Amino acid sequence: MKPSWYVIIAGCGRLGANVAGMLSNMGHSVVVIDRKESAFEALPIEFTGFTIHGDVAAIEFLREAKIHQANMVLAFTNDDNTNFMVAQIAQRVYHIPRVISRVYDAGNLALFHEFKIKTLTPVLLATGALNKVIHRYMEESG
Amino acid sequence: MKPSWYVIIAGCGRLGANVAGMLSNMGHSVVVIDRKESAFEALPIEFTGFTIHGDVAAIEFLREAKIHQANMVLAFTNDDNTNFMVAQIAQRVYHIPRVISRVYDAGNLALFHEFKIKTLTPVLLATGALNKVIHRYMEESG
Repeated sequence: MKPSWYVIIAGCGRLGANVAGMLSNMGHSVVVIDRKESAFEALPIEFTGFTIHGDVAAIEFLREAKIHQANMVLAFTNDDNTNFMVAQIAQRVYHIPRVISRVYDAGNLALFHEFKIKTLTPVLLATGALNKVIHRYMEESG
Repeated sequence: MKPSWYVIIAGCGRLGANVAGMLSNMGHSVVVIDRKESAFEALPIEFTGFTIHGDVAAIEFLREAKIHQANMVLAFTNDDNTNFMVAQIAQRVYHIPRVISRVYDAGNLALFHEFKIKTLTPVLLATGALNKVIHRYMEESG
């Protein structure tokens, strides 16, 4: 039997919203927090979780989301400082076993890794994917 | 011998700037166009190409960049409509052999594919990468 987790996603941008739908699809319970209520419109139809309208930089909203019960916390806002703070609170204060932070600016990666925060950096994934395509092009034309 | 290309990148956001550095590193000649002059500050130190300050939605700047000589055009602005237009101009008007467009909102992918535009969608790459991590977590805890 597959485990069903309680997952908190901080930030409902394109990434947060997409992942919220994916996790719902996998059978997990998901709460998404965003300070812009209109952000929740991006949630896909598969999303079956809850939303909390509030600023994750204010710890009360993480408490409202029952962060102490979470099996996984995803710090996916568009702001690296906020993501760092959420990830640190989740790891160090609440000892959440799975914490992943989006890193917007690849220049901040070293800081996150120094604090042993697992990261996801879409710009590096995209650059890596493009690199492969370009090498294929070069072989074809070479 | 590796081919050296002339590459135009429309949009100097994080992705455009990162890729501009990567292509310079590979020995290609790169021109980056952005309507915000401050955007060029994001270019990494490896970048050895040129910059044009102008709105790629105005075709004159693509002409100024000598689009007719380009071996590759990357439509990497933060606006899907602009990317679509740049990619179409590059493919249909100038017959550039390699055109790739970033797609910001995955909901627009079908349109790009209908027009046979190659796409790069960072949010889908990130969701896919996260999916793998989550499945590994689930196997570990399952």
